[in-house]
Amino acid sequence: MAAVPAVAMNGVKVGSTSQAYLESKAVKDTKSLISDLCRQFYNLGWVSGTGGSITIKAHDDSIPKPQQLIVMSPSGVQKERMVPEDMYVLSPDGSFLSEPAPKPYPHKAPKCSDCGPLFLKAYDMCNAGAVIHSHGMESCLVTMLNPSSKEFRITHMEMIKGIKGHGYYDELVVPIIENTAYEFELTESLAKAIEAYPKATAVLVRNHGIYVWGDSWINAKTQTIGIFMGAFGNQHDPQLDWLLSLSSL
Amino acid sequence: MAAVPAVAMNGVKVGSTSQAYLESKAVKDTKSLISDLCRQFYNLGWVSGTGGSITIKAHDDSIPKPQQLIVMSPSGVQKERMVPEDMYVLSPDGSFLSEPAPKPYPHKAPKCSDCGPLFLKAYDMCNAGAVIHSHGMESCLVTMLNPSSKEFRITHMEMIKGIKGHGYYDELVVPIIENTAYEFELTESLAKAIEAYPKATAVLVRNHGIYVWGDSWINAKTQTIGIFMGAFGNQHDPQLDWLLSLSSL
Amino acid sequence: MAAVPAVAMNGVKVGSTSQAYLESKAVKDTKSLISDLCRQFYNLGWVSGTGGSITIKAHDDSIPKPQQLIVMSPSGVQKERMVPEDMYVLSPDGSFLSEPAPKPYPHKAPKCSDCGPLFLKAYDMCNAGAVIHSHGMESCLVTMLNPSSKEFRITHMEMIKGIKGHGYYDELVVPIIENTAYEFELTESLAKAIEAYPKATAVLVRNHGIYVWGDSWINAKTQTIGIFMGAFGNQHDPQLDWLLSLSSL
Amino acid sequence: MAAVPAVAMNGVKVGSTSQAYLESKAVKDTKSLISDLCRQFYNLGWVSGTGGSITIKAHDDSIPKPQQLIVMSPSGVQKERMVPEDMYVLSPDGSFLSEPAPKPYPHKAPKCSDCGPLFLKAYDMCNAGAVIHSHGMESCLVTMLNPSSKEFRITHMEMIKGIKGHGYYDELVVPIIENTAYEFELTESLAKAIEAYPKATAVLVRNHGIYVWGDSWINAKTQTIGIFMGAFGNQHDPQLDWLLSLSSL
Repeated sequence: MAAVPAVAMNGVKVGSTSQAYLESKAVKDTKSLISDLCRQFYNLGWVSGTGGSITIKAHDDSIPKPQQLIVMSPSGVQKERMVPEDMYVLSPDGSFLSEPAPKPYPHKAPKCSDCGPLFLKAYDMCNAGAVIHSHGMESCLVTMLNPSSKEFRITHMEMIKGIKGHGYYDELVVPIIENTAYEFELTESLAKAIEAYPKATAVLVRNHGIYVWGDSWINAKTQTIGIFMGAFGNQHDPQLDWLLSLSSL
Repeated sequence: MAAVPAVAMNGVKVGSTSQAYLESKAVKDTKSLISDLCRQFYNLGWVSGTGGSITIKAHDDSIPKPQQLIVMSPSGVQKERMVPEDMYVLSPDGSFLSEPAPKPYPHKAPKCSDCGPLFLKAYDMCNAGAVIHSHGMESCLVTMLNPSSKEFRITHMEMIKGIKGHGYYDELVVPIIENTAYEFELTESLAKAIEAYPKATAVLVRNHGIYVWGDSWINAKTQTIGIFMGAFGNQHDPQLDWLLSLSSL
Repeated sequence: MAAVPAVAMNGVKVGSTSQAYLESKAVKDTKSLISDLCRQFYNLGWVSGTGGSITIKAHDDSIPKPQQLIVMSPSGVQKERMVPEDMYVLSPDGSFLSEPAPKPYPHKAPKCSDCGPLFLKAYDMCNAGAVIHSHGMESCLVTMLNPSSKEFRITHMEMIKGIKGHGYYDELVVPIIENTAYEFELTESLAKAIEAYPKATAVLVRNHGIYVWGDSWINAKTQTIGIFMGAFGNQHDPQLDWLLSLSSL
Repeated sequence: MAAVPAVAMNGVKVGSTSQAYLESKAVKDTKSLISDLCRQFYNLGWVSGTGGSITIKAHDDSIPKPQQLIVMSPSGVQKERMVPEDMYVLSPDGSFLSEPAPKPYPHKAPKCSDCGPLFLKAYDMCNAGAVIHSHGMESCLVTMLNPSSKEFRITHMEMIKGIKGHGYYDELVVPIIENTAYEFELTESLAKAIEAYPKATAVLVRNHGIYVWGDSWINAKTQTIGIFMGAFGNQHDPQLDWLLSLSSL
């Protein structure tokens, strides 16, 4: 198999990957899937124009998840107009293997999602198959209710069954980290939150949104729904205090 | 007519059904209809990704309703991507006659809706032609307003005319049952609620959703709209106390 | 031209109309238009399944509006599945000239909109070209805020410019009538409200919805938007009391 | 190149433009784009039926922005039914170069957007490439919360990063001007607000909506999202006072 030279995010060539895998149906299908999901999530209000992004590993049964190629949505492209050709393909260590072609005015030069370093961290620490970053208003609001809260907690809600390792009587705890001026600056606090909350499959970012990951894109999507439904339930009735116990650690 | 051996939910073969009926246009059309309704209900917020489900009897004028075949949506399939091939066909006693083929990664092995036993109970006790199980947030919220309430009551609302046996001046009473760790554990309390409220065509499940049934899918759908509109009316104006009299029996 | 015998709502044959007009492009296009609008209004939440309806006159420049044929949506048909063949055509005096064919189970026998007598009253008293009856929740809520209010009033809102005869500084006054057990029982109070409020192009029905009419379907639709936006503005912020002066006459 | 005589808004012929440019792909594509965006913004609730409008310059790399042709949506056409043929093309000084053909009953005679003079002012003063005028309810509500406020202010919200010149820690300030009986009467106060707030890329109009402009249509759209998300955040939780500091200058 031919080797493809790869350029890491820091510009240094860092390894190679199989040309066949890069041109495989798995990669092609994953590009289409992300494009489809961007349009769907746009209609759900999970991503808004240029906000939010998605990454999914190009699955191949014969390749262990940590070695699978990563497909990532671009930065600054309107989600509802996303096409498969807009996607980036990265090697497992984050080197760019394939980039979209530039588009004419008024589109800016192609740029990979600003969430790149955070997506790689979730892949690395959680053995994830997919990560969703949403700016959905419900995810912002639960972080705003109490500006000093460090967690969103909810229990006794059917939809949390959709979240890995949780039953109806369990309490779902999602850590909240503080927002920063630039997305990449969130990487360290995201990593710390993942370490501190080993059962969590999501991290909320104050006044900003949420990162949710799962074994597969289906799992990541189902968990996002679970958390949003919980957040929605909280937002739409101020009397539901018994549901909401935001703790300030 | 050829007989089709049937395997009941407990694994024992329990009777037979006509091969012609199983392969009839009625069964095929009902599979398509459930698939269409899943996508539509997804867009209405009645079902969310893997939450909620639908069952409809494959109507045949020459067969009494209790003997008609049952078509049921699967568990764990995303509602907005449902296709007719995802459906299960069951005999009137709940034996599986036809199951969907497995799908590739990351889809899980096919599984019939967890609501199966509850759907069968509604068919059995209420001579229903269709049952809808929704996780719609409005249906959750009316059960949350007063955590000890055992009923949702509403009157003087045009939309309750859509609910069987109700006029504008009547009071609609929907029993609320407590949620459980597993869906099938709700079966007994659902049955008790149906017995206790013979006029009701729906049962609410606390912090979870609602089951609504009707003579036909159109009737079940119309009644779901009526209840949701009532719940919506209650939720969106806290001053409407005169509309809402949640009793704690 | 061939004459078409017409049967009035009371079963008596009452006159005739030109066969050519009945089979004209104007009638055909109006059937399609109502079908399209039913689907669109469904997505807007103005009509819900079997609730709400629309009527539009089949325009012909050579025929004075009071003599134009009337196209009306049916009762009990799901709005999001409406097709042109579901429509009724009525003579100006309310006789049925053309009715939809029956549909198979589980559809009920065709029936013209229960709003028929009210639509005819609006046509007759207001020289309308179209009437919209909506069950939209905003229209219900403004009638619920104060159960004894007889009017909805709003002023200083850009969208009321869309309502005939109203500028930004004018006050829009929409009369509210009490609901009844059957739709046709509203006819007399609708007529009285139209007489009492000659400037109004709409009447609200308590806990039920709204009737809006206009010179044309575009005009009726624009006015419905104006009223809904006003109602929405009121509902979504309880502090906006200065906008809302519901009078109890 | 052939010269096209142009008629200014006041009826006087005022210069000429290249026939080739007027018939160029850039102009044709911009007409289609506005038509597409009208339909999309309709579904987002940013424009409603006949309310709101859009203008975009027909970009040509070889022509400085102030000399580029202007494409503008019409007045009184339903946004969800807009087609490219409904568009107006104007010279940079506001003369009409191309107008839509009249449509049959019940459509009114074609008329350019009432926002014309305001759009030209934003083009002239801000070197904009596109301007969006929305009647979105969120933009109305932020002007209603405090009827004497002259500014909408928000900070520490991820989505304001989408607004030109703003980071997460910056404060976004959008001036609010008072509404008038006729749209063109807003021109002078819009110009004053632009002068007084050189960093602003939007102006709110009390009880009416918002004008947002940008270098390109993508930029104008992204900024509109940012402001609406901010306004939404404010509206949906009354406790978020720390986010909202409406000043009464």
